Amino acid sequence: MSYKAINLAQKFGLLTEQWQPKVIAEMNDYQFKIVKLEGDFIWHDHKDTDETFIVMEGTLRIDFRDGAVHIGPGEMFVVPKGVEHKPYAEREVKLMLIEPRGVKNTGEEVGERTAANDVWI
Amino acid sequence: MSYKAINLAQKFGLLTEQWQPKVIAEMNDYQFKIVKLEGDFIWHDHKDTDETFIVMEGTLRIDFRDGAVHIGPGEMFVVPKGVEHKPYAEREVKLMLIEPRGVKNTGEEVGERTAANDVWI
Repeated sequence: MSYKAINLAQKFGLLTEQWQPKVIAEMNDYQFKIVKLEGDFIWHDHKDTDETFIVMEGTLRIDFRDGAVHIGPGEMFVVPKGVEHKPYAEREVKLMLIEPRGVKNTGEEVGERTAANDVWI
Repeated sequence: MSYKAINLAQKFGLLTEQWQPKVIAEMNDYQFKIVKLEGDFIWHDHKDTDETFIVMEGTLRIDFRDGAVHIGPGEMFVVPKGVEHKPYAEREVKLMLIEPRGVKNTGEEVGERTAANDVWI
């Protein structure tokens, strides 16, 4: 049988829009998603799950109510469930998200930043 | 509060031995582990879970009973649960593993490659 690795750079090359996460792989009921971000996201949380950010290019800032974390290329951070956070990117950032299938990017909030879910690339 | 990203290169710099995965982060009941490999692993499978490999440096080959996959830097692959596989690295490979907490590196097999579990770095 023929097996093929998933090349992240090749997958990022297929992304045309910012703020639209696309699924590239699944592990059990978790999904690996890639996304390009630039500018401000909204405050939100995920009541039932942690959320992992792994940055490939650029620097992502995630604001919390009591601080912030800067995540640069080759760095990762896990936002604990229930913790309000707001991603921000001064310049475009490429990153991978890991979270359970079905998690909405904006949590309970719905707005212009809410993206279609479970779209593969 | 002070929040700090996990720097993968810095964590790899702390690894002293090959074949000894160390935990660097948790997301719900999943763990992110880093490991350096070189040479041959054993045939094994994980009956209850998929297992994700993300390669940082070098090229990992994973043999299956009916083929193989080569995973280079910036590439990933998810081995489905129950599928027998045997990792192999001609030269040292640095990679990240993602799998549920408690999964043994050698699956049901136990031998000289079986590593201590749940050791953080």
